[in-house]
Amino acid sequence: MQAIDLIRRKRDGGALDREQIEYFVRTVTDGTMPDYQASALLMAIVLRGMTTEETAWLTDAMVRSGVRVEYPDVTGVPVDKHSTGGVGDKTSLILAPLAVACGAVVPMMSGRGLGHTGGTLDKLEAIPGFRTALSLDELRAAIRSIGCALIGQTAEIAPADKRLYALRDVTGTVESIPLISASIMSKKIAEGIGGLILDVKTGSGAFMKTIEDSRALARSLVSIGTAAGIRTEALITPMDAPLGTMVGNAVEVLESIHVLRGDGPEDTRDLSVALAARMLVAAGISASAEAAEQSVRAALGSGAALEVFRRIIENQGGDPRVVDDDRALPIAPREHPVPAWRDGYVNLLAARIGDAAVSLGAGRARLEDVIDHSVGIEIIARQATEVRAGDTVLLVRYRSDEQLARSAFLLEQAVEITETPPLTRPIILERIIND
Amino acid sequence: MQAIDLIRRKRDGGALDREQIEYFVRTVTDGTMPDYQASALLMAIVLRGMTTEETAWLTDAMVRSGVRVEYPDVTGVPVDKHSTGGVGDKTSLILAPLAVACGAVVPMMSGRGLGHTGGTLDKLEAIPGFRTALSLDELRAAIRSIGCALIGQTAEIAPADKRLYALRDVTGTVESIPLISASIMSKKIAEGIGGLILDVKTGSGAFMKTIEDSRALARSLVSIGTAAGIRTEALITPMDAPLGTMVGNAVEVLESIHVLRGDGPEDTRDLSVALAARMLVAAGISASAEAAEQSVRAALGSGAALEVFRRIIENQGGDPRVVDDDRALPIAPREHPVPAWRDGYVNLLAARIGDAAVSLGAGRARLEDVIDHSVGIEIIARQATEVRAGDTVLLVRYRSDEQLARSAFLLEQAVEITETPPLTRPIILERIIND
Repeated sequence: MQAIDLIRRKRDGGALDREQIEYFVRTVTDGTMPDYQASALLMAIVLRGMTTEETAWLTDAMVRSGVRVEYPDVTGVPVDKHSTGGVGDKTSLILAPLAVACGAVVPMMSGRGLGHTGGTLDKLEAIPGFRTALSLDELRAAIRSIGCALIGQTAEIAPADKRLYALRDVTGTVESIPLISASIMSKKIAEGIGGLILDVKTGSGAFMKTIEDSRALARSLVSIGTAAGIRTEALITPMDAPLGTMVGNAVEVLESIHVLRGDGPEDTRDLSVALAARMLVAAGISASAEAAEQSVRAALGSGAALEVFRRIIENQGGDPRVVDDDRALPIAPREHPVPAWRDGYVNLLAARIGDAAVSLGAGRARLEDVIDHSVGIEIIARQATEVRAGDTVLLVRYRSDEQLARSAFLLEQAVEITETPPLTRPIILERIIND
Repeated sequence: MQAIDLIRRKRDGGALDREQIEYFVRTVTDGTMPDYQASALLMAIVLRGMTTEETAWLTDAMVRSGVRVEYPDVTGVPVDKHSTGGVGDKTSLILAPLAVACGAVVPMMSGRGLGHTGGTLDKLEAIPGFRTALSLDELRAAIRSIGCALIGQTAEIAPADKRLYALRDVTGTVESIPLISASIMSKKIAEGIGGLILDVKTGSGAFMKTIEDSRALARSLVSIGTAAGIRTEALITPMDAPLGTMVGNAVEVLESIHVLRGDGPEDTRDLSVALAARMLVAAGISASAEAAEQSVRAALGSGAALEVFRRIIENQGGDPRVVDDDRALPIAPREHPVPAWRDGYVNLLAARIGDAAVSLGAGRARLEDVIDHSVGIEIIARQATEVRAGDTVLLVRYRSDEQLARSAFLLEQAVEITETPPLTRPIILERIIND
């Protein structure tokens, strides 16, 4: 088999067969396919697409490029959740302890933020001492002892994805539903889970802007998961304004803890409860979504979920005082209000708030950028609130004048004041299961 | 400027601006753009296309990646011809001396054969001692002294094309009219010519199979040449059966010499005369195509063209006896007839005859293959001839049983015997000039 034949076939709109896809993944992983051939093939895939079958084979080959973790001591079905990324989306931090408090086992591998959406690992690392770089042995030990670990992708998990993603990132070949699906699902399948709830964001602040694109991505992800024997479903949820009231790292941990205390903003709580409930159903713990929601709300009300989060933090070397004392989180001391410039209704533009947070230092424009976990943006006037000129809409938490100056221009564009209230959408738009 | 921005723009169907195209060519040539980015961009160009303007800018940037040759001592307009490649197409060897015998100046840079079509350099090198690797100084000296040189591309000519072609060859990105056009025309423009006649082949044995594709390529080539200030026109000519009666290297030199002696097959002669006449008009030597054809036929009849060929061969170190003595050419001694298997009409499939010649050793399947200049295929029964079962259709000239065995399978497929004569097309189908 020769790389050039695969490239020509895909270039001309043909489908690759299983053997060709395995050849591609194997030779990309071991480095015998030169990068220039891999990138030409990736561009042909971006522009010509892949069938459902090709995407499933690609995912499977990527899983088998590394280890598929097993948990021999665990009874029950390990479950996880994945979000395609939104601004202020801290639900992973909430629903992992929530699901575990209700009896689930959650081996959660997350990523770092890039661009205007944050990453779960970055948020967790805002907790003093918290280690996300656990080995597979440490992961298995954590699952045995407390039923949960919140960690980064290890080197053994889908190494093909690491190589492919690095190449896609510099060759303009990220934007492809089959490639995105295979990248997400190969890592999730390799984690060793039996159930997966996907939160596919849609809207101006999401990777997928339209409901049609989001639906296509959701269907692709669900079909791959199902083909791999995982109980998979996707919720399509809006990402027009940020989720909740905090955007950043330490500030998002703070909001998560507030929700785990039974408090916090309603939208963050409701979405976390809905996702955690779906995880319980997928894990076979609850018989219905309604029963699951009852358990989940009880775990919030009783403080049981907060206790699980405390154990997770302790187990991964973090300072557990953060769950009791808001001041234990390193939140930047200085505050700068962004006021409404006229009377009207608040329209928060998620992508621009995300960009402003990145320029402030809370996220990365490039992979090598260093994050300041302490900075962030607090939303004082929520989406569609009526305000008067001069009312504070956003409160920026920052450390240096330079940070504030760098983000000033984007902050100004992040809030619109409209004459009529912007339309808001329900927190869950659609549920996608395998047809 | 960043490579990724160019890639994304082209991937999304946009047009690159002049500065972006110059950046691409400059960084590909100096090696600062990694191959994996260049190949992703090339694949996006293959699948998204390029506007006429983008193609002209690309060509211009490729020309300026090297030297544009000048001939300060030459009065008149240097002219050249380029063929997109056909089986048995030896017209360059004939019309260069023919046009020079009529007063033209012809600095002809040619390429080597790859795949089923032959290359002028390979054919010339069948002449014992003939050197095609002349320096630019030697080229200019030859133009001064005899008005012609038949050489390969020097390192100073469009080095961007060399790098791009090497990458396109291994990344499935050869098949693109804008990229093909820029590759051909950058080399021709850099040669320093003021007139150019293009022979765009069409049909099953050509790179472009349909008249529509051939027309699109011809238009693209003519528009680039015109934009570069070169009097450019294209003839679209059929390539269904091979041109003439010889396919190979030494055997094609033999046929060329026969035509220069005023003999040889009619189709080869007529096409050479037509192309040479168009060159004389483009050079401003003849006022009309009719007058030009008269001069050209006179130069054939008088032996003047043959004398020019002798001088070219002498000037480039070749054995000039080949023009007088057919036995001075190294033609393989053994002959193998391929007979008609039934009564009917001969249909010669150019591409398969070309492939058979390659497998015999007359051409290259890969760039690194070594050619046997002495082997070839002689067509005994021309296209559409009526034959009886057992009549010889092809005569294979070979040296070793191994060569013959290697090509036997393809030779068998190269000739069809049909019940009705295959349709033949006129030697010139269309003439394309700039609109």
